[in-house]
Amino acid sequence: MAGDFAKRNLPSSTHGLMERARRTPMALWRNLWKVGRDDPRRAIHALKVGSALTLVSLLYLLEPLFEGLGKNAMWAVMTVVVVLEFTAGATLCKGFNRAVGTVFAGSLAFFIECIAEELGTVSRALFVGASVFFIGFAATYVRFIPIIKKNYDYGVLIFILTFNLITVSSFRVQNVIEIARDRLYTILIGCAICLFMSLFVFPNWSGEELHYSTADKLEALARSIEACVMEYFQEDMTIDQKSSRDTIKKGYRVVLDSKSVEESLALFASWEPRHSRLGYRYPWKQYVKLGAVLRHFAYTAVALHGCLESEIQTPQSVRMLFREPCTRVSREVSKVLRELASSIRNRQHCSPDVLFDHLHDALQALNSAIKSQPRLFLGTKNAQANSMIAAQTDQRSSSGAAALASVKTDISALLDFRTKRDQTERKTLKPTLSKIAMMSLEFSEALPFAAFASLLVEMAVRLDLIIDHVKELARDAHFKDCMEKHDIKIDVKGYKESARTLATNVACVE
Amino acid sequence: MAGDFAKRNLPSSTHGLMERARRTPMALWRNLWKVGRDDPRRAIHALKVGSALTLVSLLYLLEPLFEGLGKNAMWAVMTVVVVLEFTAGATLCKGFNRAVGTVFAGSLAFFIECIAEELGTVSRALFVGASVFFIGFAATYVRFIPIIKKNYDYGVLIFILTFNLITVSSFRVQNVIEIARDRLYTILIGCAICLFMSLFVFPNWSGEELHYSTADKLEALARSIEACVMEYFQEDMTIDQKSSRDTIKKGYRVVLDSKSVEESLALFASWEPRHSRLGYRYPWKQYVKLGAVLRHFAYTAVALHGCLESEIQTPQSVRMLFREPCTRVSREVSKVLRELASSIRNRQHCSPDVLFDHLHDALQALNSAIKSQPRLFLGTKNAQANSMIAAQTDQRSSSGAAALASVKTDISALLDFRTKRDQTERKTLKPTLSKIAMMSLEFSEALPFAAFASLLVEMAVRLDLIIDHVKELARDAHFKDCMEKHDIKIDVKGYKESARTLATNVACVE
Repeated sequence: MAGDFAKRNLPSSTHGLMERARRTPMALWRNLWKVGRDDPRRAIHALKVGSALTLVSLLYLLEPLFEGLGKNAMWAVMTVVVVLEFTAGATLCKGFNRAVGTVFAGSLAFFIECIAEELGTVSRALFVGASVFFIGFAATYVRFIPIIKKNYDYGVLIFILTFNLITVSSFRVQNVIEIARDRLYTILIGCAICLFMSLFVFPNWSGEELHYSTADKLEALARSIEACVMEYFQEDMTIDQKSSRDTIKKGYRVVLDSKSVEESLALFASWEPRHSRLGYRYPWKQYVKLGAVLRHFAYTAVALHGCLESEIQTPQSVRMLFREPCTRVSREVSKVLRELASSIRNRQHCSPDVLFDHLHDALQALNSAIKSQPRLFLGTKNAQANSMIAAQTDQRSSSGAAALASVKTDISALLDFRTKRDQTERKTLKPTLSKIAMMSLEFSEALPFAAFASLLVEMAVRLDLIIDHVKELARDAHFKDCMEKHDIKIDVKGYKESARTLATNVACVE
Repeated sequence: MAGDFAKRNLPSSTHGLMERARRTPMALWRNLWKVGRDDPRRAIHALKVGSALTLVSLLYLLEPLFEGLGKNAMWAVMTVVVVLEFTAGATLCKGFNRAVGTVFAGSLAFFIECIAEELGTVSRALFVGASVFFIGFAATYVRFIPIIKKNYDYGVLIFILTFNLITVSSFRVQNVIEIARDRLYTILIGCAICLFMSLFVFPNWSGEELHYSTADKLEALARSIEACVMEYFQEDMTIDQKSSRDTIKKGYRVVLDSKSVEESLALFASWEPRHSRLGYRYPWKQYVKLGAVLRHFAYTAVALHGCLESEIQTPQSVRMLFREPCTRVSREVSKVLRELASSIRNRQHCSPDVLFDHLHDALQALNSAIKSQPRLFLGTKNAQANSMIAAQTDQRSSSGAAALASVKTDISALLDFRTKRDQTERKTLKPTLSKIAMMSLEFSEALPFAAFASLLVEMAVRLDLIIDHVKELARDAHFKDCMEKHDIKIDVKGYKESARTLATNVACVE
């Protein structure tokens, strides 16, 4: 062990260096291979950049073109390197920014040149210097405005660059217009190559990426929830715990970390022509909204994961009683998420209503499991102690019983969390035998499970919000109608009702 | 209303256009003013860029320099525009990337040129074209490797750009070495101006920004928690609710959204020379770790905020009973957070131990408030109904009482959440009269408050983790020792004990 430690901590020793020298290329190669395997489009993009650069270098390599454009071909190279991005939308956005920045800067530089021409050498130099200072200051300052920073940062940068290049280089040159024209030509050639490469040669669309990544996120959440519930009910805690926790974490991390990528993808997607020709503006903002709702859902997933890591745990024996129904609910929630994912993936209207009845059934099964099992709790190890103490506390028990009597549908209110507060007088429910029996479940043992179950129910509720947003997206994006017309439409109210009944029972267990 | 709607939706009408034309400059001006007022360093940075550009344009404007460097002065302009960033660290990082990229590209281009010189015209063109393609492909592919993307993306971009420019431009030019030398000079001049401007003229340090933003985040959390608890106990729900919710949301949003900014600031900070001269590597990574812990803490703040927005609410009358102690706990938690913030801000070791006893007292006060008030619950509006139903359920109450008997210290286990799982047999506590009386508090009314209180307690627990990280940071960053040596050191165990006792009571209320 000590030797191992030394090996790891003294790479400067000869042995360590050799070891590193041997390992580094292999690690590099593995990295390179992984990058391409994870997303083959990356290799294609690299090939595209290589081809575009070769194409642009033809301007130099071929004699006649060289005669025509001269040294300005450099600008084409620069344009290709800087503008050609991974997705078409990003390329278009950058290309547009570059073009607008260049044109604005060119016009302004020309205007200033016109004024400067009238002046003497010294005052001309002063004038040019002052305008360089002022334009540099103003443009840099403008870059701090959030809306500019978000959409046109690159354009302003190019504006500053081009303006300065033209202004200072035109100071000693006579044929400014000619230079500007040649430069514009080469930039246009560069842009044309970029557009051709990004729009017609294996194009990557930001819109598609956003679209499919949204579906992926739904699936990741589904996996995360399934794995989480599975692990909660796993009897042998040692088996594969690490990989299962990885799945859980990966599932919600993908969603939680997606904000900035999502927003820039939506921005680039709005530049892409592909979806605009459909005659309506594709609702990219809906994806961003859906992403926000998914992040909200993911918070519940994080909390559910928290139940696994918490120190207070309901004993396995008690958990096992609810293994089947809980697993079923999680399976159904995952199914709905997967159905939504595939609805997005296939651009189909196919609503998850067909799965609602399964979820409905699952919730009811959990409900009746909680209802039917109360007697079993009495059989746990503390039953004896309980009955002993029960004798002592018998005389004081009337007030405790009164509390039981007023058990109300607490978490059910959560189900209506989007409705307005109209807290009318709540009815006091008459206690049923099963509810009272349930209270004999040990408080300390039931509480963590109750939290777990109520999170599961809350998830089912939040699912509703996701469904709403996916439906909205489907409507705005004109998804195809579903193939199967024989879907059994289950009204959402019935489903909510069952969730509410379940919640009541969960509250009772607490 | 309808007219207003039309106005807003038909800006294309004449009136709308005029209105817009009138408003836009004003809005722009307000925006510009706000940008500068929010952070005056932005205006200073803009002035610096203007000055740097003017300085660099002197290469053109002054006769002798122009004779010397010729048209290559363009490269200095380009360097200034692209490299000069807001903070010193970012400028250094970009400047380093640019320098290394340029040098590598230049060497490679020179090497390829040497080989190409031996070939005939056609085969030379083919060779250059092929190398352009291959290098372009390889470099673009390498940019997808995460570690390269994170640290050297810009350098690789510059490498591609420079390599292509040199290779293709050298194809027709004889004096490559000379060109390369002149270009390197001008780039060095540009870099020198950038370094001078960013290091010596009103420098902005990424490190400082990271440092103070961490303190700011602690303070924002403190504000958020205070506002949250204040609103929870506010009697008049209409007063200032919006602004208070804004404070709450802003407080935790600042923390939740900080990940990427924090990471890049830490990256840039590690480039800054200022802290390195202290003789040890400044622990920028500690800030990133502390940020992660703060985000974790912020999740609890989000959950606490969720208590305000939930549809189930403990009645004001019941809440009011705990107003004082809860507000006190939140005040003490905020105080500790503020103390940590000021410890970071002043780079002082001053530990928050002196505040621990206050928090300890506050937790105990909440504890005894919960203990001393149980009778009052019986006085709520449902007491009558309770006693009525109590009569009916009297015969079944023994099992309910048994459940009460086994109430155990649940949430207290949370307090040890970082200790290993060593779930030994838990002792069954004998119920005290007060506990049983407490159970007569209505279940539905107590539950939300119990959730609120336990979140508050959990916060006090997580505070411990934050304190640990701040202490670690203080140690690694060699903060000054505290001025006051007469701090009353309260051992953390005592504080935890009190939190645990409180948690027991919270669990009982549940």
